[in-house]
Amino acid sequence: MGQERPEKFKRVAIIGIGLIGSSIARAVRLHGLADEVVCAAKTHDTRRTALELKIVDHAYEDPTEAVKGADLVILCTPVGTYGAIARQIGPALEQGALLTDVGSVKSKVVELVEPHVPDGVDFVAAHPVAGTEKSGPAAGFADLFAGRWCILTPSEKSTEAAIAKLDAFWTAIGSNVEKMSPEHHDLVLAITSHVPHLIAYNIVGTADDLQEVTQSEVIKYSAGGFRDFTRIAASDPTMWRDIFLNNKEAVLEMLGRFTEDLTALQRAIRWGEGDTLFQMFSRTRAIRRQIIDAGQETAEADFGRTAYPEDD
Amino acid sequence: MGQERPEKFKRVAIIGIGLIGSSIARAVRLHGLADEVVCAAKTHDTRRTALELKIVDHAYEDPTEAVKGADLVILCTPVGTYGAIARQIGPALEQGALLTDVGSVKSKVVELVEPHVPDGVDFVAAHPVAGTEKSGPAAGFADLFAGRWCILTPSEKSTEAAIAKLDAFWTAIGSNVEKMSPEHHDLVLAITSHVPHLIAYNIVGTADDLQEVTQSEVIKYSAGGFRDFTRIAASDPTMWRDIFLNNKEAVLEMLGRFTEDLTALQRAIRWGEGDTLFQMFSRTRAIRRQIIDAGQETAEADFGRTAYPEDD
Repeated sequence: MGQERPEKFKRVAIIGIGLIGSSIARAVRLHGLADEVVCAAKTHDTRRTALELKIVDHAYEDPTEAVKGADLVILCTPVGTYGAIARQIGPALEQGALLTDVGSVKSKVVELVEPHVPDGVDFVAAHPVAGTEKSGPAAGFADLFAGRWCILTPSEKSTEAAIAKLDAFWTAIGSNVEKMSPEHHDLVLAITSHVPHLIAYNIVGTADDLQEVTQSEVIKYSAGGFRDFTRIAASDPTMWRDIFLNNKEAVLEMLGRFTEDLTALQRAIRWGEGDTLFQMFSRTRAIRRQIIDAGQETAEADFGRTAYPEDD
Repeated sequence: MGQERPEKFKRVAIIGIGLIGSSIARAVRLHGLADEVVCAAKTHDTRRTALELKIVDHAYEDPTEAVKGADLVILCTPVGTYGAIARQIGPALEQGALLTDVGSVKSKVVELVEPHVPDGVDFVAAHPVAGTEKSGPAAGFADLFAGRWCILTPSEKSTEAAIAKLDAFWTAIGSNVEKMSPEHHDLVLAITSHVPHLIAYNIVGTADDLQEVTQSEVIKYSAGGFRDFTRIAASDPTMWRDIFLNNKEAVLEMLGRFTEDLTALQRAIRWGEGDTLFQMFSRTRAIRRQIIDAGQETAEADFGRTAYPEDD
C-alpha cells in the first residue's frame, strides 16, 4: 500500500516529542522525508533534550509557532490534550497542510480535532501500533515502526489525496498501513488491548488489597501467572487514563461481554461443571495457534505497551 | 532449608510420568537420591517412552505394582485422579513409606488422599512451582526444579520426620522449600495463578465470540496486549479443569473480589472519573517494581504454565 516514494515534506511539526514523537522525527530524517523537522514541547527540559539529540531543527514551547509553515503536523501528546491543542493551532495551520496524530483511540480524536480543522487543511487520524515502555525524547529510535501496523482512520476532512500521502509517509517509515473507520478501530483495540490492560491493572489492584495473602507472598509466587499481569503496570497512567476516558463506549461494551462470560465461568466452577470448563479451555487453543501462525508472537510480554505511544 | 545430604531412598515410585514425573525421575538419578526409580503410566506408549529414555528402571500399568517396596511414592497425575489412585494404592503402600504429590491445589488433595493413607505410612502434600508448556515424559529435564519454589503443605498424617525428609529431597533437587497450610497455599495460588489463568482464558473466549471484530483482526492486532493472554491457552485443559474444580472456594473468593474491583473501575470509566483511574493505574506500579526487585521477573511470559505440573 502507498507509493514507494512519498512526497518530501517542507516542514514536519511534531507536537509532543516523547517516545513516539521523537521516533517519528528520527525516522523522518533517516528516510529523508522532510527538509525540516520541528517540535513543540511544554517543558524546557524536553525541548533542550530534543535539540541536544539533534532530532529536531527547532523546538518551540508554543505549538502555534511549530506549525507555522508546516505541511505535515503530527499530534504526539496524550489524547486528552488534543482538543485544546487543536483549538490553539487550528488558525495557525497552513493552507494545504496535513494534520494527523498517533493516538490510541480514534472516534473521540476525530470528534475533538476535526471541528478545529480549517477549510483547506486535511485531517487524517492515525494510530501507529508501536512503542516501548520507555518515555521521553531520548527513548525513541528511528525503526520503532518498522514492520508494525499503522492504522489510518479517515473521517470527513480526509481527502483521498491526504490519505494516500499519509499512507506513503508511514509506508516509507516501514509500517504496514491499514485503513478502517474510527469506530471500528476503537472496537478492535478495545478487545485486543484496552480491556486486557484494564483487567490486568484490576487484578494487580485486587492482590494489593488482600489481607489473607501478604504482598511478599504475591511477589514470591508471581511467576505462577500474576507476574505477567503486572507488566502493564509499567504503562503510563496518564496515557491509560486518557484511553479509557476517550474510548468509553467500546471499552464498556467489551467489558460487559467479558463480565458476562466470566460470570458463566464462575457459575460453572461453583456448580462443578467440568465439561463446560474443559470445552472452554480447549476452544481457546485455536486462537493461540493462529496468532503463532500469523507470526504475531514473540517471547517478550508487554501487555500492549508496545501498542501505545508514550506521552512526552 | 533441609539437611544438605538427604537419605537415599530404596525405591522411588512415580505415578504418572509426564513432564513433572519424568523430570523428578531424571533429577533423582542425577543426584543419586535412590537405588531404583519406577513409574506407573496408564498408556503403553508412555511406559515405552519412559523406558526408552532410560529415566526409569521399570514402568507399570498398575500403580499398585509400582508402589510395592517403594519408600517414596509421588503422585504426578492430574489432581482429579488422586482420589481413585490413593484408594487403589493405599493397601499396597509399604510400612514407613512416604507418600507425596505435585498437585497445583492442596486442601482438596489432602481431603482426597489422606483417608486412604494407612497407619505407618507418612503423607506430605507438596507443590513444586515449576513446569513448562510441554507435556509427556520426553519433555522433562533434571534441573526443571532448580531455583524454583516447592511448597510443602503438611497435614494430619505428616510427621516432622517425613516433612524433613521431603524437604531434604526437594532441596537436593535444587528447589527452595517453603511450608504453609494447604488452605493458605490455595489462597496464595488462587490470586497468583488460578484467577489470572481464568480471566485470561475468559477474554480469549470473549474475543472469539465477537461478531463486530473479526478473528483475523483480533489476531492481527493481538500484540496490543491480547496476545499475552492467549499464551495460557497452551496450558492443558484437563489440568486446569481439575485445578478449578478442586480449588473452588479460594478461586470463587478471589474471583468475587476481582469482579467487585472491576465493577468499580467500570463505573469510574462510565462516569468519567479520571482521578480514580489515574490513582489506580499509578498504585499498581509499586507491586511491579517489587517483583522486579525480587528477581521474579523474566522476559518470557508464560501465565504460570511454568508454575504447574503437566499431566502425563
